[in-house]
Amino acid sequence: MTIRTIGLDGDDTLWHSENHFVVTTERLVELVEPWLTDDDSAAAVESRLIEIERRNLSLLGYGVKAFTLSMIETAIEASDGTIPAGAIAEIMSWGRDLLAHPVELLDGVAETLDAVAGEFALVLITKGDLLHQESKIAQSGIESLFGGIEIVSEKDPATYRRVLQRHGATPEDFVMVGNSVRSDVLPVLELGARAVHVPYHVTWALEHPESADAEFPTIASLRDLPALLSSWDQRVP
Amino acid sequence: MTIRTIGLDGDDTLWHSENHFVVTTERLVELVEPWLTDDDSAAAVESRLIEIERRNLSLLGYGVKAFTLSMIETAIEASDGTIPAGAIAEIMSWGRDLLAHPVELLDGVAETLDAVAGEFALVLITKGDLLHQESKIAQSGIESLFGGIEIVSEKDPATYRRVLQRHGATPEDFVMVGNSVRSDVLPVLELGARAVHVPYHVTWALEHPESADAEFPTIASLRDLPALLSSWDQRVP
Repeated sequence: MTIRTIGLDGDDTLWHSENHFVVTTERLVELVEPWLTDDDSAAAVESRLIEIERRNLSLLGYGVKAFTLSMIETAIEASDGTIPAGAIAEIMSWGRDLLAHPVELLDGVAETLDAVAGEFALVLITKGDLLHQESKIAQSGIESLFGGIEIVSEKDPATYRRVLQRHGATPEDFVMVGNSVRSDVLPVLELGARAVHVPYHVTWALEHPESADAEFPTIASLRDLPALLSSWDQRVP
Repeated sequence: MTIRTIGLDGDDTLWHSENHFVVTTERLVELVEPWLTDDDSAAAVESRLIEIERRNLSLLGYGVKAFTLSMIETAIEASDGTIPAGAIAEIMSWGRDLLAHPVELLDGVAETLDAVAGEFALVLITKGDLLHQESKIAQSGIESLFGGIEIVSEKDPATYRRVLQRHGATPEDFVMVGNSVRSDVLPVLELGARAVHVPYHVTWALEHPESADAEFPTIASLRDLPALLSSWDQRVP
């Protein structure tokens, strides 16, 4: 029952991500506001964006390119087609800024992973744009600590089963660590493996779980992971 | 020196892809034409699109979402910002059509792969949007013939080296088959492995090789692959 492999999520678990999306969404609301039709309000722009992202998810998937396309769609729909092309060009430049933004590791990530990498096999399990995720990993400075990197299109039990198999891990000796209850915790528990929730200060609406009728440990920071792993080790024979 | 593993490209090698991009590009030129400024012509729209795709490649990568964003950028730039939002909404709908388009296998693909799958390990090596490629593979009806599926962000020698290692193949026993000299042939030859070119009737401008001072076999259809493999087998001791 000893953990051998730790799966780690990327965005909002190892490095900041959602905070940039939040700021960009605020800019979108401001940009679109002068073009709103009477029956729409600034507050409604944000919920419209979320609905459009939800509608596009099965076709566009996750990541900045999908987000940019959904922002453009929101601007056109909310303005009833009156928004000028220049405003759309501005939205596109925000997408490029998001893609080009330097990677900022969360506090304690580098030290903690460095400390546990000797004892455990680390696998990065992340979703989003393939190229963008690869570029963030390459820039992160912690790539060499990982024995495996898996960029996946969806984090469901079937995906985790495939990733565990590929890395010779079993549900008994695997723990997943991430900020999303929906993507990093629930599907992993469903497999019979363990999962640890490390909340980020904001969570994207589409990552809110439909229900979370499950028990799992929550830690405030990745810094608390080694102590949690030790406590498990002492509890089992 | 016997081949054990065959790498196969997806788009324009196993299934049609570029033909849909060509038709969509024609529609873009038509759509933008009424909004062109004096110093631009309809013919210039297409070369502008290619330049914008080239400029965006390192940030946006390959695939339909990148293409859609580049089409929007082209429409805005070529019209000097005068194109209305409704036209941009139409471009976005073409992007969705490309993503939702059913997979059409090229002639002879299913029979040929079915025939060689017993004797060789088949690995699909494709680039583009992660989710879109996965969805095309799942729809293709030939997924079960592949021992491995690798969706990569770039096809360079380092990528092929990693893929070969992961599948226990060596440059000596591997052959790559694909429609792009730039992506499927030259980087594979650079590794010391073999590559076979199966041209598609159109090639995206960004897949044109800078130079192709290399020798490699070209076959007109995947149907000709088994005969080529047999001829290699007979030539080596």
